[in-house]
Amino acid sequence: MSEDERISKINSLLRRRGIILPSFELYGGVSGLIDYGPIGAVIKRKVIDRWIYHWSKLGNIVEIDSPTITPDKVLQASGHVSEFNDFMSVCSKCRSTFRSDHLIENHYDDSDSMNANQLKEKIAELKIKCPSCNSREWSDPEPMNLMFSTKIGAMSNGRIAYLRPETAQGMFMLYPSLFRHFRQKLPFGAMQVGKGYRNEISPRQGMIRLREFNMAEIEYFIDPEDDLEIDYGNWPEKISFISSNSEKISCSIKECFERGIVRDKFVALFIAMTWEFLIDIGIDSQKIRFRQHNSDEMAHYASDCWDCELLGSHGWIECVGIANRTCHDLESHEEFSKSNLLRGWRKYDEPTFASRKYISPISSIIGPKFKSDAKEVSKSISEMGEMPESFPFDLTLPDGRVMEITEEMIELKQEDEVIHGEYFTPHVIEPAFGIDRIIWHILDHSFIEIEKEGDSYTILNLKDIVAPYDLAILPLFDKDEMIKIAKSLMKDINEIPRITGQMDTSRSIGRRYARADEIGIPWCITVDYTSLDDSTVTIRRMIDQNQVRVKIKVLLEKLRNGTIEGLF
Amino acid sequence: MSEDERISKINSLLRRRGIILPSFELYGGVSGLIDYGPIGAVIKRKVIDRWIYHWSKLGNIVEIDSPTITPDKVLQASGHVSEFNDFMSVCSKCRSTFRSDHLIENHYDDSDSMNANQLKEKIAELKIKCPSCNSREWSDPEPMNLMFSTKIGAMSNGRIAYLRPETAQGMFMLYPSLFRHFRQKLPFGAMQVGKGYRNEISPRQGMIRLREFNMAEIEYFIDPEDDLEIDYGNWPEKISFISSNSEKISCSIKECFERGIVRDKFVALFIAMTWEFLIDIGIDSQKIRFRQHNSDEMAHYASDCWDCELLGSHGWIECVGIANRTCHDLESHEEFSKSNLLRGWRKYDEPTFASRKYISPISSIIGPKFKSDAKEVSKSISEMGEMPESFPFDLTLPDGRVMEITEEMIELKQEDEVIHGEYFTPHVIEPAFGIDRIIWHILDHSFIEIEKEGDSYTILNLKDIVAPYDLAILPLFDKDEMIKIAKSLMKDINEIPRITGQMDTSRSIGRRYARADEIGIPWCITVDYTSLDDSTVTIRRMIDQNQVRVKIKVLLEKLRNGTIEGLF
Repeated sequence: MSEDERISKINSLLRRRGIILPSFELYGGVSGLIDYGPIGAVIKRKVIDRWIYHWSKLGNIVEIDSPTITPDKVLQASGHVSEFNDFMSVCSKCRSTFRSDHLIENHYDDSDSMNANQLKEKIAELKIKCPSCNSREWSDPEPMNLMFSTKIGAMSNGRIAYLRPETAQGMFMLYPSLFRHFRQKLPFGAMQVGKGYRNEISPRQGMIRLREFNMAEIEYFIDPEDDLEIDYGNWPEKISFISSNSEKISCSIKECFERGIVRDKFVALFIAMTWEFLIDIGIDSQKIRFRQHNSDEMAHYASDCWDCELLGSHGWIECVGIANRTCHDLESHEEFSKSNLLRGWRKYDEPTFASRKYISPISSIIGPKFKSDAKEVSKSISEMGEMPESFPFDLTLPDGRVMEITEEMIELKQEDEVIHGEYFTPHVIEPAFGIDRIIWHILDHSFIEIEKEGDSYTILNLKDIVAPYDLAILPLFDKDEMIKIAKSLMKDINEIPRITGQMDTSRSIGRRYARADEIGIPWCITVDYTSLDDSTVTIRRMIDQNQVRVKIKVLLEKLRNGTIEGLF
Repeated sequence: MSEDERISKINSLLRRRGIILPSFELYGGVSGLIDYGPIGAVIKRKVIDRWIYHWSKLGNIVEIDSPTITPDKVLQASGHVSEFNDFMSVCSKCRSTFRSDHLIENHYDDSDSMNANQLKEKIAELKIKCPSCNSREWSDPEPMNLMFSTKIGAMSNGRIAYLRPETAQGMFMLYPSLFRHFRQKLPFGAMQVGKGYRNEISPRQGMIRLREFNMAEIEYFIDPEDDLEIDYGNWPEKISFISSNSEKISCSIKECFERGIVRDKFVALFIAMTWEFLIDIGIDSQKIRFRQHNSDEMAHYASDCWDCELLGSHGWIECVGIANRTCHDLESHEEFSKSNLLRGWRKYDEPTFASRKYISPISSIIGPKFKSDAKEVSKSISEMGEMPESFPFDLTLPDGRVMEITEEMIELKQEDEVIHGEYFTPHVIEPAFGIDRIIWHILDHSFIEIEKEGDSYTILNLKDIVAPYDLAILPLFDKDEMIKIAKSLMKDINEIPRITGQMDTSRSIGRRYARADEIGIPWCITVDYTSLDDSTVTIRRMIDQNQVRVKIKVLLEKLRNGTIEGLF
């Protein structure tokens, strides 16, 4: 089966079974938008819950939730207003519009990282024809901002805003509140799960490139000078790395850090924990690699960046980015907002002492001389940074008046100070997860087609923690007594927190087992004639299709305390 | 304490403790947008989880997730493009813009339901002055659409879209997939939790009126002719109702339905379950009432509408709406999209028989006569609805040619049919929850100010299931051995799924108990000198401030199986 065939089989299953569907199909659809249907939405919720749980375990990362609508100013500070662009070429003849890099992507692998001039040159050199009208005359590539724009408020009071291109800014905005929450102790982090938006010119590749996507990000604020030691003992396994000089390495995270390939201890921690998370939710460990950015690829302010790429039917796809962004974000917001709340406090081990010189007004002279203005004059003198070079000199008051100050009005004083620490701008490590892309790979890695009695048979081998239902309840025949037992069992099961069952009564038991396997339900419970006599049911495990008979009471107890595996 | 004082005290707590904060404060803020901080985001997540769990228990409601960006056409069908408006008045002198109803709201309680003419008249009659410049000359009230608009795609390829004003449309769009998921058996429902948007002219009242809000909606599709009986036995409690003729009633839901006040059995079910949900998450049962819309208030297509109002410091506020919207939504989408997939199937108890008359071409005549056109002619004859009044007559083919048809070419046939059922447009019951408003009322109802040792002392008496942390871990002194035990305990606790602890080491133990009480942490665990000797800790219950000493091992076990209350 080719990868294209595989993608089309998976997509057909996703749509047929209500996992992922193209949005607004009734109205012809909108590319780059998808729906999570009744099965997909549960998988998504479980992946997100697990993500929150995974990072909560660290004990110093908290969730926050901020708006998707973001005012202009914030995204100017973040650089998105000026730099979040794709280049567009317009056909001079038919006015059709294309992404410049797409026009030449068959000739250059790196067309998406070319600048306007390079794109223009290559398009001319290759004599690219307009896909619509075959003309070879193109406008110069022009940047188009990829944010969705809108307006807050009405008419003349309206102000420009954008749908956030990432969730990160919301966390920078809340830095002052986080700093208070953690009682000023770094390191600490915030995480956010939510929608991000990117007005793609021509979205392709199904769930990989969306206009509205689900993302999950962490901003982990650190003191770059701290001396914390991180124990990587929990991750002895070999992980695949590709270093910035394209070397392929397979080693533990500890070794990778000690060899200096991963440059930051926290980046190493997040790589290890990301790897652990992905395996936990059902990504195949053989299809994960961490690729380090080379210096061309990396933003100028960043000190280390890694993409976590997953291998699936679309090839290797970036699904997580982990970057050390240094102090860039907080400094930039400090500059744009003029706030002084974006700092950390570094307490010295031992206080230091310093002597400070300052200029002091002599009240006994200034008072009688300036009378009602004396207070104002004294204040202005105190605020002078340096002694004047000569006396007398002109002092300008805040209201613009100029006063002549003579030598006897001023003295230079000295004071000893105890300094307990200093303010600094924290650095930030940013792990950013593309949730839709990760879910695609969970589905891709768990999609298995086997042959069963001559027909092709599909199993979605999902891990229990992301399965859409915990169990299917199947009354063997559509008989009142069986339905009654099944319904009562279903009710009892659905009342167990975090456990949900689905009842299926249509068609043959074989069809129903197949339907359950196709959406990855790990357990099937069958109510049959014996159930009527002795209150037992059979329970069947998807993965090996084994089944055992068990009392309903025992089944419920095992479900309640999570020991269902013990029955086998 | 006045309500305004109370609101300001609660808001100050919400901001100080990172529960709810105004968004983008670093840049001066944007009214109508809020952040959930590190404490608030957990409360919100727990409320939403509980909401999903509550409705999942019914067994036939599934979650879905659809985009917030919605193309124009969908919102034309829903009526939002033409009808989702507020009226605006512009001052003719200074061009300031105001909501017309706000200009006269001090004089009329119902100003927000007036039409353009009424508003114009009242503004003139009352000689309303412009709040900015005191002029009395106003433009005519003009409707302003309250949706945020944007554009999907680039330049000339761009198409108009809006941020969804509600999550409901996403569920109507997925009706065909839901119908398949539930194997064509009504009733069934879809639920969705997510952002909704409303470009308010002048948002006020904190969390009550937001521009970007969290909502949770159900669309429950029913056959209006089904004969299902609903058992209201689970809700014997008295609930407060205000009927459409303003009568105040306190009775069980069963009685309210039997007296014919609630007009629909499913609306009654959702009222009861909404009431149960609200109490479950900590809303005061004495501060809940269900108010029925009168006919003026209700949309023309709806057959019964109820607001669930909660009483808090802002007065009675609508937090949930429950409406029987009949077949309006699906019919409207059928009309706009021309889809035939928005139907339900009603199987008859017994099949019926009908005889059908139809027009049949006689091939033995038509064949020789029309030769190569015979097939085309026969097809066009078959598609005629009725027999012509006279012969011969002119038959127009799809390609425009006209053929003369004589009597011997046609015969009228009759056929017997077995009819097993019929297609119909399902009706829909829509419960819509304002999550932010509900969270405000949880906070408002649990905010308690008492006096303790002469000072005012705040307790946020949250129910365990919505508390931001399950427990606080407090090492009595900042000593290495105590910190070590506390850290190890914290790690063990955070690894228990769904349980999270917060460690607090700053300042006196009294201060730390107070901080925990202020954000509603139900349990405080203190590590003290005795802990060092015998591996015990003390555990203190917020609500009565009682405490007991317990082995760490026992504590962990009780936490794991949810029996912590048993210690007291």
